[in-house]
Amino acid sequence: MSRAVVLLSGGLDSCVSAALAAETHDELYFLHADYGQRTEARERQAFEELAEAFSAKGQLVVSLKHLEDIGGSSLTDTSMEVTEADLESEEIPSSYVPFRNANLLAVATSWAEVLEADAIVVGAVSEDSSGYPDCRPEFFRDFEQVINSGSKPDTHIRIETPIIALSKKEIVETGLRLKAPIEKTWSCYRSEDQACGSCDSCALRLRGFYQAGAFDPIPYKVRPEYR
Amino acid sequence: MSRAVVLLSGGLDSCVSAALAAETHDELYFLHADYGQRTEARERQAFEELAEAFSAKGQLVVSLKHLEDIGGSSLTDTSMEVTEADLESEEIPSSYVPFRNANLLAVATSWAEVLEADAIVVGAVSEDSSGYPDCRPEFFRDFEQVINSGSKPDTHIRIETPIIALSKKEIVETGLRLKAPIEKTWSCYRSEDQACGSCDSCALRLRGFYQAGAFDPIPYKVRPEYR
Repeated sequence: MSRAVVLLSGGLDSCVSAALAAETHDELYFLHADYGQRTEARERQAFEELAEAFSAKGQLVVSLKHLEDIGGSSLTDTSMEVTEADLESEEIPSSYVPFRNANLLAVATSWAEVLEADAIVVGAVSEDSSGYPDCRPEFFRDFEQVINSGSKPDTHIRIETPIIALSKKEIVETGLRLKAPIEKTWSCYRSEDQACGSCDSCALRLRGFYQAGAFDPIPYKVRPEYR
Repeated sequence: MSRAVVLLSGGLDSCVSAALAAETHDELYFLHADYGQRTEARERQAFEELAEAFSAKGQLVVSLKHLEDIGGSSLTDTSMEVTEADLESEEIPSSYVPFRNANLLAVATSWAEVLEADAIVVGAVSEDSSGYPDCRPEFFRDFEQVINSGSKPDTHIRIETPIIALSKKEIVETGLRLKAPIEKTWSCYRSEDQACGSCDSCALRLRGFYQAGAFDPIPYKVRPEYR
């Protein structure tokens, strides 16, 4: 019997990661965090619909509102602008929430230790990604080491990042192949009714669908042309 | 200018660590977490009085109530008993909150990154301690590595554990030498008006004062005899 805690924001990447996790684990436990991000209500809806679609064995929604109090990110601070996507830039974007993934992984590990789960599944993407430092493979490798040194001797939890080396095109292709419920996901950083089509997250997602020769089923205000 | 984020539960260990941090850092920022522990109201009072006594430059109180939802500890689950102290046992006590210190350090790092602080100060004790896996030196060393790999390239944060190798006797002696405001601290896991004198935390503290030949100034229901 293999149990996994799956970090599920409600976006495309976490949905495809959950679909891959469903192939190798018997029971999935879905974890979602509200950290004061602008589009949390819409993300939460996606989380709940995805948990149902995947028949999650357990669900946990946690509040990490202190990340909003601490600030430093356009994702949680509405006085900062969510910048237009620049997919060529090497800068860390303003949407970076300082050390967010470590906060999420710490919660996931506490839950996984009590559940006696063997894995935590994270939909982080390193290549073709947003440039966040807490999405790099070495960060996850080091966090796995911290779990090892900071939990009970009989606790053994792997961190699985099944899409970390995939391009957005490959993530879309994988989701379509596995018939993942992509139509229930939400990725936009800016709005909750129609995706804006021009923030970092929308731009990466739409380019991925374009490169995969597929149509993104969620509603957009504007669909930019890619070639 | 050196800034440090100090994890301050309100207990003896964090108070003495703050006193040591005040000797080497120009500005202290105090961080306290409510994770549903039984004696949080009394700990919070101690935190506020200590923040004032140390003239903290900033204060942040965060809610990590999900640790209570996740459970697995007698410190947060009132249906579990807080066991009597057994200072000779090698078992992990029921008061262990799964991976709590990683949750705290993740918050501290997010705050430290925004503050541009150089250090996080933790009053963990390894020797003569409670046997929690997330209090071991290798856990903190590994977490420092995670900070390095998961934060911005120009973020450099050390984890300082100034009392990790001290016995409780030495912690008491250090606190007295530095005139730390020990009378404002609270350590009991069970009660909030008078310390119980017999939980792990009280037993370790009272033995430390006894071995240092000093009198613990906080009120106890019962003061066991040590020799």
